[in-house]
Amino acid sequence: MTMQPLFRALSAFLLLVSALPAAMAEGRQPGVSPWGPDDEIGRLNLMTDESRANVLSRILGGKSYDLSVEYYIGMPSWQAAGDPHYRIWMTHTPEGTVIDDPMNLGVTMNQHVSYTGAAVSMYTHMGTHIDALNHFGLDGKIWNGFAAKDYAGDRGWRVAGIENFPPIIARGVLIDVAASKGKRMLPDGYRISRSDIEEALRQQQIKLQTGDVVLLRTGRMQDYDNAKAYMRNPPGLSYHAAKFLVETAGAMIVGADNLSLEAFPSELESDYVPVHTYLLAEQGAPIIELVNLEELSSDQVYEFAFIGSPLKLRGADAAPLRPTAFPLR
Amino acid sequence: MTMQPLFRALSAFLLLVSALPAAMAEGRQPGVSPWGPDDEIGRLNLMTDESRANVLSRILGGKSYDLSVEYYIGMPSWQAAGDPHYRIWMTHTPEGTVIDDPMNLGVTMNQHVSYTGAAVSMYTHMGTHIDALNHFGLDGKIWNGFAAKDYAGDRGWRVAGIENFPPIIARGVLIDVAASKGKRMLPDGYRISRSDIEEALRQQQIKLQTGDVVLLRTGRMQDYDNAKAYMRNPPGLSYHAAKFLVETAGAMIVGADNLSLEAFPSELESDYVPVHTYLLAEQGAPIIELVNLEELSSDQVYEFAFIGSPLKLRGADAAPLRPTAFPLR
Amino acid sequence: MTMQPLFRALSAFLLLVSALPAAMAEGRQPGVSPWGPDDEIGRLNLMTDESRANVLSRILGGKSYDLSVEYYIGMPSWQAAGDPHYRIWMTHTPEGTVIDDPMNLGVTMNQHVSYTGAAVSMYTHMGTHIDALNHFGLDGKIWNGFAAKDYAGDRGWRVAGIENFPPIIARGVLIDVAASKGKRMLPDGYRISRSDIEEALRQQQIKLQTGDVVLLRTGRMQDYDNAKAYMRNPPGLSYHAAKFLVETAGAMIVGADNLSLEAFPSELESDYVPVHTYLLAEQGAPIIELVNLEELSSDQVYEFAFIGSPLKLRGADAAPLRPTAFPLR
Amino acid sequence: MTMQPLFRALSAFLLLVSALPAAMAEGRQPGVSPWGPDDEIGRLNLMTDESRANVLSRILGGKSYDLSVEYYIGMPSWQAAGDPHYRIWMTHTPEGTVIDDPMNLGVTMNQHVSYTGAAVSMYTHMGTHIDALNHFGLDGKIWNGFAAKDYAGDRGWRVAGIENFPPIIARGVLIDVAASKGKRMLPDGYRISRSDIEEALRQQQIKLQTGDVVLLRTGRMQDYDNAKAYMRNPPGLSYHAAKFLVETAGAMIVGADNLSLEAFPSELESDYVPVHTYLLAEQGAPIIELVNLEELSSDQVYEFAFIGSPLKLRGADAAPLRPTAFPLR
Repeated sequence: MTMQPLFRALSAFLLLVSALPAAMAEGRQPGVSPWGPDDEIGRLNLMTDESRANVLSRILGGKSYDLSVEYYIGMPSWQAAGDPHYRIWMTHTPEGTVIDDPMNLGVTMNQHVSYTGAAVSMYTHMGTHIDALNHFGLDGKIWNGFAAKDYAGDRGWRVAGIENFPPIIARGVLIDVAASKGKRMLPDGYRISRSDIEEALRQQQIKLQTGDVVLLRTGRMQDYDNAKAYMRNPPGLSYHAAKFLVETAGAMIVGADNLSLEAFPSELESDYVPVHTYLLAEQGAPIIELVNLEELSSDQVYEFAFIGSPLKLRGADAAPLRPTAFPLR
Repeated sequence: MTMQPLFRALSAFLLLVSALPAAMAEGRQPGVSPWGPDDEIGRLNLMTDESRANVLSRILGGKSYDLSVEYYIGMPSWQAAGDPHYRIWMTHTPEGTVIDDPMNLGVTMNQHVSYTGAAVSMYTHMGTHIDALNHFGLDGKIWNGFAAKDYAGDRGWRVAGIENFPPIIARGVLIDVAASKGKRMLPDGYRISRSDIEEALRQQQIKLQTGDVVLLRTGRMQDYDNAKAYMRNPPGLSYHAAKFLVETAGAMIVGADNLSLEAFPSELESDYVPVHTYLLAEQGAPIIELVNLEELSSDQVYEFAFIGSPLKLRGADAAPLRPTAFPLR
Repeated sequence: MTMQPLFRALSAFLLLVSALPAAMAEGRQPGVSPWGPDDEIGRLNLMTDESRANVLSRILGGKSYDLSVEYYIGMPSWQAAGDPHYRIWMTHTPEGTVIDDPMNLGVTMNQHVSYTGAAVSMYTHMGTHIDALNHFGLDGKIWNGFAAKDYAGDRGWRVAGIENFPPIIARGVLIDVAASKGKRMLPDGYRISRSDIEEALRQQQIKLQTGDVVLLRTGRMQDYDNAKAYMRNPPGLSYHAAKFLVETAGAMIVGADNLSLEAFPSELESDYVPVHTYLLAEQGAPIIELVNLEELSSDQVYEFAFIGSPLKLRGADAAPLRPTAFPLR
Repeated sequence: MTMQPLFRALSAFLLLVSALPAAMAEGRQPGVSPWGPDDEIGRLNLMTDESRANVLSRILGGKSYDLSVEYYIGMPSWQAAGDPHYRIWMTHTPEGTVIDDPMNLGVTMNQHVSYTGAAVSMYTHMGTHIDALNHFGLDGKIWNGFAAKDYAGDRGWRVAGIENFPPIIARGVLIDVAASKGKRMLPDGYRISRSDIEEALRQQQIKLQTGDVVLLRTGRMQDYDNAKAYMRNPPGLSYHAAKFLVETAGAMIVGADNLSLEAFPSELESDYVPVHTYLLAEQGAPIIELVNLEELSSDQVYEFAFIGSPLKLRGADAAPLRPTAFPLR
């Protein structure tokens, strides 16, 4: 009897708690930018003219490394949610133009001037690409508290679009996890831990620094030309290792040679992509995926100037880029 | 009387000549590569590890320049032959995902993890981009004699596709023609001559070198946000000035801040895009268009390391790139 | 002093009133369906097996009329809000397939079996098409009160999508307004009034009946092959004439041979497309646009069986259809 | 010795024979139209005003049958050669329009007028569709001898495009092969023979007539909502049964409820799609695929007026259509 008021209070409390969004229960919410309320690029603010000049001044010269994959019909891509595959088609061919005459130039001109044009369509997260901070949020808000209901239009976000990303010129570090374990490729679904990373860095005799572009190698890129093999249950980064890379090691960008950086299924029950939401929404750290690290690995180049710039697709949540690595002295 | 046989012979000869394809009459045909029968990249062969190291070693540090424009619905693009406009659309929005639930995750998960994804479609010659050597040929063949009937498929060419272009790291030179004439912008349809170029270089106190990425400024980029104004009858490069830039001055790549490099209508009756066919098919010199030179101009930076790499769209005749310029010491 | 409470109340009231959405001020809001809370097709409920049997039984036989336009690159379409143009491209050509060999069949097979395939993309309101009831709503809700926030996903609406439209088999009536005025085409921007309609019906000696597919002819279709001319400031239906057609005359569907049924600018300050919101959201009456009435007009066929069915694009707000008209006895 | 000339002649002959295209060796080549050298629609010429009037006059009234499937992301489609999947996306949503304001109307207007627009892209052979006669040819030529090199442009064929198909109004006949065998669905890869067809017609007490739209039911449509199941190794029509349907029974169009009409692998070594090339190129008989026959089957309606018209996609090799069946008396 006397218990009833207490019981009621407890019920009310439990009801309240159960109604809390999962993120709050776990204390997860979009980060507030230390770079101010208008910040849309997060940790890319770590780059300064000085940091760029510093890394550029250390370029060794000689060989450079192309870190990008090719785009082709049938290439691997994220398809679980019904996103578009990569498509390329010809809008003009030398022989077709003679038949179509789309500019009313006549047969002779079209036979003489042999015109080829193509068009492409793609999901923005395709091939070597970088995610903007609006790609994943928590509870309707992205990094720095921008709300979807205020900024997410039908042709991109009004804030935090990839066009705000400056050219990325920073120290890059390859963490060759596969090689450090003496493996050609990490096993299917393998989740890279903090100690895996620390061990690889120890072997490579490299220390991470604040502002680094950290690129993890699982070896999966060796299957890039076989889309099914490439996409199937890839190894990836664990949630706690992601936390280590940013909060302890100071990474500006985290990337890998696999499809989606993280491994599945998720380590958090309330979040199917916790590494994405952690990096993008909580930390403001962009993610690079499908980066080709094979040649760096094979030459054991662990430290380099990373120079790469995403296409400025206004409002977009990601864009392709073709980065180049220049070994440092 | 005695004239008759001669007259007949002359008639026959004239008939023969008039039946020759225009290109042969003018002696224009695809160039044979000095880099061998397999060459697909033409003058990009001028880049070597040494040339790259040389330009990189001269980077001043400090400010860098983003030479790329933004992609957005309504942006300027070549539309005369019915090519696709730029499109971006959302495949996932935070609120739409709650309604669609495309991965069968349930309302709670979709409300907590706020997913944004976009897709794009575009003509390959859109925004800041570089043309591959298969973009224009003469009489059915492109640079180095590759024939459309042998190599031009429905999803790109089997040779000379843009994916073969290496990262472009070379000395870049801005030729600010508009500024050299004391103009905000060259007039509509103005055709840049060899002497215009020589005069601008004289004023800038810069000499061109073999292997340069030569970028011409007409000032038209100031109208980029007004597509109609940007596209209407742009100033551009003359045929003879193009010949000067490659054959005399040694340019590796020729680019400009306008839509199509050259000015229209064509100077050659037999060819509606003679600067394109000359550079791409005859000389193997890639073309960059829609490059944003405003900031370089305003800072009077005429010499810089040009670092930029087109997306590797397999088989494509062009690809977007986002180049960066680094002033040299 | 004593005025203050009254003043406060008045202020509060004025504030309230000024905050009312414009539609409420004008008394405009989505209609509540007389066919029940689940109704998604509005006035199409007027069709029954009996109504269909009745019209089919009256078909005269002999000539039938194709009411559809062709789809081609450069065709007229609504572009004011940046919607996609019609595109068609080849995914396989007989000659390209030999080069690409996309199914690994070899040259001999590909030369023997000559494969052609094409793909298309389009805005759903393109060519001869019919609007679903979710195309336009008022204050966030469509016909029958369905709210965008509950049902509008990233790949269509969960309710009222065009796939719910049954095959349309009903009496069709051509109202040849242009002909009734002795004109080849109504003038630019001309707004068809109720009396224009009544006069045309009088001349045609036709009475409208409940459940009719009413098709208005402006004559604009004669410019269909000239997209610029077709799209420029078309004549169209006035708001009050639309009310007459549905509320007095009983039309089930209202259509016309122009781009957007109504004329612009709008007659209502608060609504830029009042004929659309009236028909779709208030009355549940689908709209057909770009219907080709030229041949019916020229043969003076004013009454016919209209048989046409939109593609069942799940969730879509419109779909193309190719209707046929069969004169009645 | 004396053998040598003979041997040489024989060798030359054998060389010649081996160089013959496979089609000629088998005597297969595109048909010459009995309807004249300009004919682009083949057996659709069997329709006349009289044949249409005849079938329309026999319509029973009452229930009609929708033979079309829905289009949705994830729907079954032919993907073996890298063709585009069906896509639908929103170009305008009620909430997104408020954020984007693509027509510069302001927040109040966009909140009041709730605008939804979508766009789609698809391979033309998707959903319920009909193939044009240019879809498959033999040795570079299609029905009636039109050559790809003369007519196949980059945006469709200049001849035999689907826009030439008139509205299809003809007697339709369901041949319910699955039901005639007492099966829910024909087994995977089952090849329907001539005697299967004859037995089904005997059970149904129906005779085929010249000009019929013949629709075969395998039962596979019951798996339509499960794309993987629907697409996997479907049952289909055999080459010899196809010959029977056209040459003996007089079919104008042949269709089925499966993905590609025929069963795979092919019965002819030289042709991977012999039923397609036979019907389209040799006989000028259009093919309908993915037609939904479930309701007709369940009501045992075997004879009906078939009314359906493909979208007029200029130059295209196929187009979607949404046919309706009306039982005959």
